[in-house]
Amino acid sequence: MALPLLQIALDNQSIEEAIITAKKAEKYIDIIEVGTILLAAEGKKAISAIKNIFPDKTIVADGKIADAGNIFGKMFFDAGADFTTVICAAETPTIKDLVILSKKYSQISGKNKEIQVEMTNNFTWEQVQDWQKVAVPQIVWHRPRDSQETGKKWGTKDIEIVKKLANCGFKITITGGVEVEDIKLFKDIPIYIFIAGRAIRDAKDPEAKAKEFKDEFKKYWS
Amino acid sequence: MALPLLQIALDNQSIEEAIITAKKAEKYIDIIEVGTILLAAEGKKAISAIKNIFPDKTIVADGKIADAGNIFGKMFFDAGADFTTVICAAETPTIKDLVILSKKYSQISGKNKEIQVEMTNNFTWEQVQDWQKVAVPQIVWHRPRDSQETGKKWGTKDIEIVKKLANCGFKITITGGVEVEDIKLFKDIPIYIFIAGRAIRDAKDPEAKAKEFKDEFKKYWS
Repeated sequence: MALPLLQIALDNQSIEEAIITAKKAEKYIDIIEVGTILLAAEGKKAISAIKNIFPDKTIVADGKIADAGNIFGKMFFDAGADFTTVICAAETPTIKDLVILSKKYSQISGKNKEIQVEMTNNFTWEQVQDWQKVAVPQIVWHRPRDSQETGKKWGTKDIEIVKKLANCGFKITITGGVEVEDIKLFKDIPIYIFIAGRAIRDAKDPEAKAKEFKDEFKKYWS
Repeated sequence: MALPLLQIALDNQSIEEAIITAKKAEKYIDIIEVGTILLAAEGKKAISAIKNIFPDKTIVADGKIADAGNIFGKMFFDAGADFTTVICAAETPTIKDLVILSKKYSQISGKNKEIQVEMTNNFTWEQVQDWQKVAVPQIVWHRPRDSQETGKKWGTKDIEIVKKLANCGFKITITGGVEVEDIKLFKDIPIYIFIAGRAIRDAKDPEAKAKEFKDEFKKYWS
């Protein structure tokens, strides 16, 4: 199984702070996420600013698109995003539009432009089948921040769902307060991306913390 | 049943265009929505700009919050929003946090600050019960834009769901390509708000079109 990639989530409230955060761990980061919070605070210019400063990184716009797929997709891809998220509540026509649009952008740019369906626990397996039918390439399994705060940890249920989604052929991102010690829980699953936000951002030495994640990946994937 | 309110959705991609749009129909509009598209394009400053220009209108931030309720809630209420939307995929702790936060903001500001859960067809009635338990005051029934483009019209299913939600005690907003001729479909239901976006924006005379909506409301509600 290929080594997972490491993504940093920039959930700062200003572009300046976000750039400072990303710079601190740049060396070991594969993917930089313009978080929903940063997008809501600064708008789409946050995407182009981050892409300009980090032209060699894959950029994810965590737009959690719920509708109007073509409008948001164009907005985010034009601003420099490589991947963009769609919330699981979006209806299938929206998701289908975005899959088609991302393929067009891949052809035009010669780069890999993809969408990721971001899941909460509020989904059905019928929806997952629909996503397969419209050729969704990526899924984000998201343990909500607010559920974390009520004390909910990664559980057997999360792991089972993630396994099942990987078996469906999706490339999986794991996110939601991921710590280094959580990585081993996913060891038998072909995880595509782990997102670390606060774990890196709030570390005394963010670069060392990012390296710690990458070292941990090497223990279980190769 | 009280007269429904008329909300204009500003889904422009710049604040300047949004202000021009709203100005054209200002006289007959009760509520101005900073649309998700405008928020993604310009960030939270779109909310404060619209509030400054239209201080007497109720302002909705259509943030479709999915997680991190307190962070987004503070961001939007501080910027001047009266209502903010939460996407139905959000987990209950997020929605509960936002209900509590909106009550705090109501107390501090002396104004009515509320949240609206925005629904797509991807929901369950168990979720609706959870929303009742955490005292969600408002629901937005949303016919997706991308489903409209596949030719899906307002149907019996929409009406039945909306009736059932009204019976649960929620204040209901109807949105998604609403035209004047659609209003009568909801005549026996206590609708709180109808949103018109493109119907007003794209009208030759937006003010006249907004008045047409209000006149239509008077035929079926009083």
